[in-house]
Amino acid sequence: MIAKTPEPPYYAVIFTSVRTETENGYAQMADRMVELAAEQPGFLGVESARNEIGITVSYWTDLATIKNWKMNAEHTIAREIGRSDWYKAFKVRIAKVERDYDFIK
Amino acid sequence: MIAKTPEPPYYAVIFTSVRTETENGYAQMADRMVELAAEQPGFLGVESARNEIGITVSYWTDLATIKNWKMNAEHTIAREIGRSDWYKAFKVRIAKVERDYDFIK
Repeated sequence: MIAKTPEPPYYAVIFTSVRTETENGYAQMADRMVELAAEQPGFLGVESARNEIGITVSYWTDLATIKNWKMNAEHTIAREIGRSDWYKAFKVRIAKVERDYDFIK
Repeated sequence: MIAKTPEPPYYAVIFTSVRTETENGYAQMADRMVELAAEQPGFLGVESARNEIGITVSYWTDLATIKNWKMNAEHTIAREIGRSDWYKAFKVRIAKVERDYDFIK
């Protein structure tokens, strides 16, 4: 769903990826990473969609909490399997959300 | 595909949406908006994925070119049909990309 984030400023980590054909526990790990991220200090929400490419955007209060999440031990293992097995290519962009607006029917 | 963006800083417009069931030319208009955006000054690339939600991230050199794109006449018509027909809800976040890194196998 659309993440309920607070008033800006806050940070977004935009993770864009192309998957390999290798499953090797990918779906379970993806679910686990969302669950684990949500337990971290500074986590504000996450949005994810995939067809030809995958886009996952996670939202955080500040750069320090993003760095903490990157260094989380279980996440680090997942990131290593990501490089060896799950992804052909990915790009990570760290961005400061300056403004937002929404529409609900 | 993963957008080939230049070295940061640059801007990202993160558009997260939930569609209605109404087609009414949606797919054609989505394609046309990508084509039209790519012709605008300051456009750097776009990435898009959809399953339960849609996430489209477009990249721009600066805030002025994002504003120009928002005010583009054809885009304004599309945004109006988006609110009346295509989207149950959406959120737009404008963010300054400060850092990025990538992985290619």
